[in-house]
Amino acid sequence: MRILVVGGKGTIGQAIVEKLKDKHELIIAGRTSGDVQVDLTSVASIEAMFNKVGHVDGIVNASGTAKFRLVEEMTPEDNLVAVQSKLLGQINLALIGQKYLRRNGSITLTTGVMKDDPVPGGASAAMANGGVQAFVKAAAIDFTQGIRINCVSPNVLVESYDKYQNSFKGFVPVPAERVAMAYVKSVEGKQTGQEYQVY
Amino acid sequence: MRILVVGGKGTIGQAIVEKLKDKHELIIAGRTSGDVQVDLTSVASIEAMFNKVGHVDGIVNASGTAKFRLVEEMTPEDNLVAVQSKLLGQINLALIGQKYLRRNGSITLTTGVMKDDPVPGGASAAMANGGVQAFVKAAAIDFTQGIRINCVSPNVLVESYDKYQNSFKGFVPVPAERVAMAYVKSVEGKQTGQEYQVY
Repeated sequence: MRILVVGGKGTIGQAIVEKLKDKHELIIAGRTSGDVQVDLTSVASIEAMFNKVGHVDGIVNASGTAKFRLVEEMTPEDNLVAVQSKLLGQINLALIGQKYLRRNGSITLTTGVMKDDPVPGGASAAMANGGVQAFVKAAAIDFTQGIRINCVSPNVLVESYDKYQNSFKGFVPVPAERVAMAYVKSVEGKQTGQEYQVY
Repeated sequence: MRILVVGGKGTIGQAIVEKLKDKHELIIAGRTSGDVQVDLTSVASIEAMFNKVGHVDGIVNASGTAKFRLVEEMTPEDNLVAVQSKLLGQINLALIGQKYLRRNGSITLTTGVMKDDPVPGGASAAMANGGVQAFVKAAAIDFTQGIRINCVSPNVLVESYDKYQNSFKGFVPVPAERVAMAYVKSVEGKQTGQEYQVY
């Protein structure tokens, strides 16, 4: 299959690429790296990417950011970082990308553990994660051409636990390699509307 | 207590007002009706409302809209209706309103059944509902002044089932009066971070 992996140079992205590269033709997209560039916060940039890439059998996104800030200090503007990136970046990738998906193609997005197991300052990220998960579950019933859509919700990663351990006290980090298996399940399996929680 | 009810003239809003009015001082906010006007899609309008209303013990929102459209026809622009209204309208009400809440005050937002039990064309609404629910769960752990935050997820209402029955096949509608009880639980109870599902 021909698979577009957005964020393919990140920690999770690289692990996904490792799992998929021997069996599929991969196109790696990134903001500054990869085979094609995209800024998911821009609808025009997403459209330009698909114009270049053309039709694919799978769209995977492993990118997206959010501002970590305690709710008592959070402004509406702080929250827009997650809205534009992790929430709308992913949903717009799905809305635009569906037109470039071949029959029975799949879309796989990324949420995260904070929506189920909150951490201090994580409410904006949680919001984006919760929005994506609910969109995925609902969108799955609307597709008519065998298109599937799922998301993967990773725990904090072993690879980045040093950086994030102060926020994720008591969490048991998971290796990116294990998280990547959930993307394989979404891309190569048959399920739709699911969130794979790798906690 | 002094409670601000945004959307207090809507079907759910009126039922909430009916349950709360004998025990509390209520301020009803609406886009065009009520004691004070607010457009939740505008941060400036929310700030202007709280400038007029001053400090309260509770903030309740029973308003918010979304565009219903099948995902295959949905554009990024269609989805912005729910983002601006049901998602950011409510989250900005919480972010701005927290500064006007007295100690141990509460915030109660509204989600909806579509995020758990999807209906055709409901993915944008589901996204907003899922985002609000996850925000509520995560925000609850950040507050330090006894501030609580919950949301209520109503099923389709008995009162509007005629209008919506084509989308909600097989759903068993609930009366607004029963939904209103969940807002009472949030306002007068002690729980926080909860979603009360009235299905």
